[in-house]
Amino acid sequence: MEVPMWVNFIGHFGAFLSAITFIPQVWQAWKTKSVKDLSLGMLLIVFTSVIVWLVYGIYLMLWPVIIANGVIFFLSLILLYFKFTFKN
Amino acid sequence: MEVPMWVNFIGHFGAFLSAITFIPQVWQAWKTKSVKDLSLGMLLIVFTSVIVWLVYGIYLMLWPVIIANGVIFFLSLILLYFKFTFKN
Repeated sequence: MEVPMWVNFIGHFGAFLSAITFIPQVWQAWKTKSVKDLSLGMLLIVFTSVIVWLVYGIYLMLWPVIIANGVIFFLSLILLYFKFTFKN
Repeated sequence: MEVPMWVNFIGHFGAFLSAITFIPQVWQAWKTKSVKDLSLGMLLIVFTSVIVWLVYGIYLMLWPVIIANGVIFFLSLILLYFKFTFKN
């Protein structure tokens, strides 16, 4: 199937936005040292889904999927670390 | 490209996990009525990325993308509503 360039662009833009999703959250958590309102369940699902998406993306060599989830992998690891170490 | 069944399954599993990501977060926010540690920037990026992914998914008729982001659309709307209405 021939995919128009603007659709490809939209896909890459979506991958970019997904990749940076947790940057403001990591920043705020680091600044406030408070993560009590962050759901541990959410963080664990994000971490699991990222691994699933990485398997999928690497098998099909989908670079936007690989890069976006590679970034989210590290950011969600940081948030999990905060969740387990910050007192709040 | 012929995609093996297990790879398709992995993709659907990833879409399922992504869809349910915010369920524990909505639940915790509703229970505690506290969302101050949730980054507004994160919620706005999620909301924007969901719309971008919906355009992409609808154009290419990618049902896992459409369904997952449809679910995330509503959950992120709920979290944004909480963020703007809860005092904490």
